[in-house]
Amino acid sequence: MKAKIRLYVEQGLGVGQSIPLDRDQAHYLFGVMRQPVGAYIALFNGRDGEYLARIVEAGKRGGVLECETQSRLLQMPPDLWLCFAPIKKARTDFIVEKAAEMGAMRICPIQTEFTNSERIRRDRLQAHAVEAAEQCGGTYVPEVADLQRLDRLLDAWPTDRNIMFCDENLAGAGEVLGKATGDKWAILIGPEGGFSEAERKRLHAFPFTHAVSLGPRILRADTAAVAALTLWQTHLGDW
Amino acid sequence: MKAKIRLYVEQGLGVGQSIPLDRDQAHYLFGVMRQPVGAYIALFNGRDGEYLARIVEAGKRGGVLECETQSRLLQMPPDLWLCFAPIKKARTDFIVEKAAEMGAMRICPIQTEFTNSERIRRDRLQAHAVEAAEQCGGTYVPEVADLQRLDRLLDAWPTDRNIMFCDENLAGAGEVLGKATGDKWAILIGPEGGFSEAERKRLHAFPFTHAVSLGPRILRADTAAVAALTLWQTHLGDW
Repeated sequence: MKAKIRLYVEQGLGVGQSIPLDRDQAHYLFGVMRQPVGAYIALFNGRDGEYLARIVEAGKRGGVLECETQSRLLQMPPDLWLCFAPIKKARTDFIVEKAAEMGAMRICPIQTEFTNSERIRRDRLQAHAVEAAEQCGGTYVPEVADLQRLDRLLDAWPTDRNIMFCDENLAGAGEVLGKATGDKWAILIGPEGGFSEAERKRLHAFPFTHAVSLGPRILRADTAAVAALTLWQTHLGDW
Repeated sequence: MKAKIRLYVEQGLGVGQSIPLDRDQAHYLFGVMRQPVGAYIALFNGRDGEYLARIVEAGKRGGVLECETQSRLLQMPPDLWLCFAPIKKARTDFIVEKAAEMGAMRICPIQTEFTNSERIRRDRLQAHAVEAAEQCGGTYVPEVADLQRLDRLLDAWPTDRNIMFCDENLAGAGEVLGKATGDKWAILIGPEGGFSEAERKRLHAFPFTHAVSLGPRILRADTAAVAALTLWQTHLGDW
């Protein structure tokens, strides 16, 4: 028996656990998806793996699921952050979705000298990460951090976390990652206008920065994010 | 002197060449972008590299540019096709944009057993490829082929072209590409529902098929396309 619908819930999951549904969840499962009592739904909360749950009560304003068996163990992604400068709405949404799909642990929107974006809707981006995890069968949901200034982020940067710095005008990629040690990482993607000279200097001066190239063509920020995640995952991650 | 605007044109380019503009191009350059006579525009046609051209006439219904110097040589991408099953409109557009940005030579929409899409707007997708090349500084524009059935495409498949087959439930990626020979390639990405058993069998039976995994999570088709392009480019391409 396999559930067709995967649902993210906040509650703790375990065999025999009852999961009360809120109005939105009930509307989605019973109104939109037309699920009857007795149907099975896959539940995950980002902490306890995935459980197959049976619908035991279905109403307009709520309902109850009961967890029957664990269908998947929690699969944590590698300890990888994706730091990027938010761009246009659709492309920012896309980056968050892809980071969740491809296995980042934490998503950090950053403000650089050339970033246009003054604010983000953290809750909306977090909802995108949840939806991507629901779709891709993930049991973990990366946390979307608040928008932070790059200089402040670097002021407090933990020295045991490597930075994969996606800089322009560089050659070589695989060799760079092949030589690095440590398993805490962050990918850093700049805004459309690139990093400022001061930012580049500061980043290159860190001993834990590993600058890599993403090829001879100029990539948009969203393409760069997916390409960088692929390179990291294939060299150092769980692919 | 650097041009801020890049424009794709159909005409042949060369030093001293006059380029008459059509109504749409004139509207874009003079109406939307407010470019005056004397301003410089970067032109490319996918064949002759990039030329810096000066505006010598500007009107409502047309205008003339004159090529002064060649600013970039033609940079051909590797001989790589991206074959993918079209999905929802926005995600299909996205795949074409990314393929043009990341350096594919030819984009082949395919119909598989589980593909939902019955038709595509080839001209619209081709326009997306042009726009992506304009944006990313490319001098080559990949050709978007007509939608074709996978079985017919395989019937006529050239035996000297390798297939990087992005299949589910497989391990290892880099080793596979590392061992392959030949420099003609096609990346093959399935629809959301995956390939049918018959399609998978047929593909695995070819001596020129190289099956690779894209990690332990299920990727959406658009993510898979960008990830596969990255893997190919970093192992066998020009990154």
